[in-house]
Amino acid sequence: MGYKSDIEIAREADKKQIQEIGMKLGIESKDLLPYGHDKAKVSQEFINSVQGNKNGKLILVTAINPTPAGEGKTTTTVGLGDGLNRIGKKAAVCIREASLGPNFGMKGGAAGGGYAQVVPMEDMNLHFTGDFHAITSAHSLLSAMLDNHIYWGNECDIDIRRVQWKRVVDMNDRALRQVNVSLGGVANGFPREGGFDITVASEVMAILCLANNLKDLEKRLGDMIVAYRRDRSPVFCRDIKAEGAMTVLLKDAMQPNLVQTLENNPAFVHGGPFANIAHGCNSVIATTTALKIADFVVTEAGFGADLGAEKFMNIKCRKAGLSPDCVVLVATVRAMKMNGGVAKADLGAENVDAVNEGCANLGRHIGNLKSFGVPVVVAINHFVTDTDAEVRAVKDYVATQGSEAILSRHWELGSEGSADLATRVAEIAESGVSKFAPIYEDDMPLMGKIETIAKKIYHADDVIADTKVRDQLKLWEEQGYGNLPICMAKTQYSFSTDPSLRGAPTGHSVPIREVRLSAGAGFVVVVCGEIMTMPGLPRVPSAESIHLNDDGQIEGLF
Amino acid sequence: MGYKSDIEIAREADKKQIQEIGMKLGIESKDLLPYGHDKAKVSQEFINSVQGNKNGKLILVTAINPTPAGEGKTTTTVGLGDGLNRIGKKAAVCIREASLGPNFGMKGGAAGGGYAQVVPMEDMNLHFTGDFHAITSAHSLLSAMLDNHIYWGNECDIDIRRVQWKRVVDMNDRALRQVNVSLGGVANGFPREGGFDITVASEVMAILCLANNLKDLEKRLGDMIVAYRRDRSPVFCRDIKAEGAMTVLLKDAMQPNLVQTLENNPAFVHGGPFANIAHGCNSVIATTTALKIADFVVTEAGFGADLGAEKFMNIKCRKAGLSPDCVVLVATVRAMKMNGGVAKADLGAENVDAVNEGCANLGRHIGNLKSFGVPVVVAINHFVTDTDAEVRAVKDYVATQGSEAILSRHWELGSEGSADLATRVAEIAESGVSKFAPIYEDDMPLMGKIETIAKKIYHADDVIADTKVRDQLKLWEEQGYGNLPICMAKTQYSFSTDPSLRGAPTGHSVPIREVRLSAGAGFVVVVCGEIMTMPGLPRVPSAESIHLNDDGQIEGLF
Repeated sequence: MGYKSDIEIAREADKKQIQEIGMKLGIESKDLLPYGHDKAKVSQEFINSVQGNKNGKLILVTAINPTPAGEGKTTTTVGLGDGLNRIGKKAAVCIREASLGPNFGMKGGAAGGGYAQVVPMEDMNLHFTGDFHAITSAHSLLSAMLDNHIYWGNECDIDIRRVQWKRVVDMNDRALRQVNVSLGGVANGFPREGGFDITVASEVMAILCLANNLKDLEKRLGDMIVAYRRDRSPVFCRDIKAEGAMTVLLKDAMQPNLVQTLENNPAFVHGGPFANIAHGCNSVIATTTALKIADFVVTEAGFGADLGAEKFMNIKCRKAGLSPDCVVLVATVRAMKMNGGVAKADLGAENVDAVNEGCANLGRHIGNLKSFGVPVVVAINHFVTDTDAEVRAVKDYVATQGSEAILSRHWELGSEGSADLATRVAEIAESGVSKFAPIYEDDMPLMGKIETIAKKIYHADDVIADTKVRDQLKLWEEQGYGNLPICMAKTQYSFSTDPSLRGAPTGHSVPIREVRLSAGAGFVVVVCGEIMTMPGLPRVPSAESIHLNDDGQIEGLF
Repeated sequence: MGYKSDIEIAREADKKQIQEIGMKLGIESKDLLPYGHDKAKVSQEFINSVQGNKNGKLILVTAINPTPAGEGKTTTTVGLGDGLNRIGKKAAVCIREASLGPNFGMKGGAAGGGYAQVVPMEDMNLHFTGDFHAITSAHSLLSAMLDNHIYWGNECDIDIRRVQWKRVVDMNDRALRQVNVSLGGVANGFPREGGFDITVASEVMAILCLANNLKDLEKRLGDMIVAYRRDRSPVFCRDIKAEGAMTVLLKDAMQPNLVQTLENNPAFVHGGPFANIAHGCNSVIATTTALKIADFVVTEAGFGADLGAEKFMNIKCRKAGLSPDCVVLVATVRAMKMNGGVAKADLGAENVDAVNEGCANLGRHIGNLKSFGVPVVVAINHFVTDTDAEVRAVKDYVATQGSEAILSRHWELGSEGSADLATRVAEIAESGVSKFAPIYEDDMPLMGKIETIAKKIYHADDVIADTKVRDQLKLWEEQGYGNLPICMAKTQYSFSTDPSLRGAPTGHSVPIREVRLSAGAGFVVVVCGEIMTMPGLPRVPSAESIHLNDDGQIEGLF
């Protein structure tokens, strides 16, 4: 018997009215701003009204380093949420929104897969509730106001060679990576070099996801550095007087979006910062609100645990005062085999030796996560070709690491398949064993923080940084930015900066290519290797085959 | 006693749930896609289901040439809609959506004014239901796919010097008017000149507003000319294979938006093409749907009657098979005085002579409108300083033109003030006296159509066009575009191409500067004078003072 595709399953979903989903968490109709019948924003008034509530338990779902075999981190997040509801817990899922542009390059990412999905899938991969458009607008307004400031006399004395603020568009458009603007004569301004990033790379996106409320949002927007003067002193967004209007444009986007899983359980889908030059987590406001109204909140972070979980802990949890009660580390038998040297074409055949070999990657992530003081459960996201012996090999290995691995079959069976995982996760979270703490203190020097991450998480021997980078970090410390956390931007495929080094490499160095200050978001970005902030389209973009069929359904997007 | 500001009145509105407004037109909850509690889109299924209904009566509201005194065309449209409902008619208003960008330059335009407004005003001037963002996305996708096509081998053999398709953004950003794109080396493409227009100037906007349904939309998008080859043959959007994915991005945007007036009557607010390089009317789908479910539909067209009403009749009505049953021509005593030579500062003083002098502009519009075979009623949009003698002068003048003028006080009194106007308009519309026909035939040569408009509407002596323009028009006729209507782009302040020529000038010429083919929208744009398709921001943009106050309300936008 064949399996149904994700989109087939999603289209068969028996969706409930979003008001019914809201009621599961005590959100009444008047506190939901509907977008159609299956999406809604939670009102600011409601969010304010629940601030006195006790927090529920916070579960982070993270994964081993991604391989082409796929791990199913979002699928497991959704499956675990449904599993918790199945065993009688009031649970909500918190995940990120999808970027629009990339869907027109390669086929779009669903939110989860199999019988562990969030719906409506089409909307979530298109305009959804307009949050990313609002971010593009707010970002574009500052861009226009900045060049307008220069045009009308440049009172701030901006050095047009040192404008830091790039423009953004939510589309994969390589032609805009590097452009010359303000051409065509006096009426169009002073010609200068510029460029566009994709919207998810905007600092406005990172800020929206870290801000506690609209006041905090406005302050952080004002804090952004947009340019430097000839004397190298920074020009802030507030010098351009844009932060108030930007906040107005982002007012609705700050309200978390509520949708549902295939099993009609609540899911918050809100925010989606890049997981390289930003911290890669859903919004603080969605997570903190969910914790006030659900007993269990299951969330995830971008890429593998070395990037995603590290930033979740050291940036998001630190800044938002969050404390995870349990971490679920997702692995698959297939990914273990790829880490153990098996080629993708050969993944169908049983290979216990390769599984054992590949478990080194898993083991290192377990150890890293424990260094934050949190309990770790490994979820083996079941794939239909996995053999009992292979699954047993993973379980046995995990036991040697002082943790436990649980097979979960949510992809195939929904919550029926994830009930065991949910039961164990709930026990651990409720036991109060978590002693969470970030792995570096605020007052450690910036280079010390970088070295801590490189050594404790990447298990590198050292960090390589030239004088320019070191001087820049010192300058920021003098300017009062020394207390910020670090946002690492490196390959997600390896603990090292070399994407081909799978498993658990040692003896490597972490070379810093560049450092950037996101003064509004509140972190220092450390770039190790090539980071693409504006993707291109492939030779045959998926857009060429995306269309509406005669029934008005979208074809080719998935 | 002072008068309340538009925003004060709007904030005091006793809004009904949008489902209740829908029920007034027989639209049930399931057929409304809500966006919050006071906005909704009408479902495609509902639109399909009413196609067999009889049409209601169509009323066009247009105006004299705009002056700095203001005429209140939208205010009168809304006031007349409320007036018709007051006298027991089932009436709906159809107006355009506002462009986002300009609100951050100068204070935003409300939808109507005084006690004749459409709400929610803030949303309508910000993201509303995301239609314009969807248009920006669809446009941007084609932009990215076009440069991507060139990048991966340029199979269509596009001459990069002859790319016609500009990019768009919904922001006043003069720095983007003229740019060089694809700089930075091999990975970023082939450097070429480009530029950005504001979103409302996109041909996609014009198409969305003229398309009958999603199939028609997709076909028209495919018909757009995006570039020319070295042999001058056109490259279409469908050669780039973008029209299917663009249609998917526009699927929701094609559904008309329902909101309400201050008196809780239904208003469709949908689409907003430029009134110069496009036709300046709300969407065909909103107007035709409203006609199927209301007995009276009151709509408006951009700028004065010489531009707005002319295009409404010759482009929109022709293409959509619409036939106006009555035209309301809005004038104010103040605008008559300005046309009669009074400076803005002196408008407060009674000046019957200046009113009489200025009526020439009004008289010519009455005659022009009658040449389309439609009955004309003049609405004198009452201003508190108007004297009885001044109002009498306008009424007397209009009577000499074989029409009648009715004083309307909707701004001050809502429908109580517009009931007289509504009563007379309803009588005329129901009488069936309208014998509407466009003023030129499809098969007239393009230059003949231009001359017809110039002579019959502008009352010019001749049209001046150089050989290049005449050859271009001939070439388009040979390529099969000769049957298209003309979209004039000239100053809105005068019948002539000289904005300072008020009143009813004669003896002038109409010089054609440039002609452009909008093959998807289905018209030939004739540019007479400077047309700005990307505005700039002023020295002190309104954005600098736009912010949220401590109650979370938007300040500075109005």
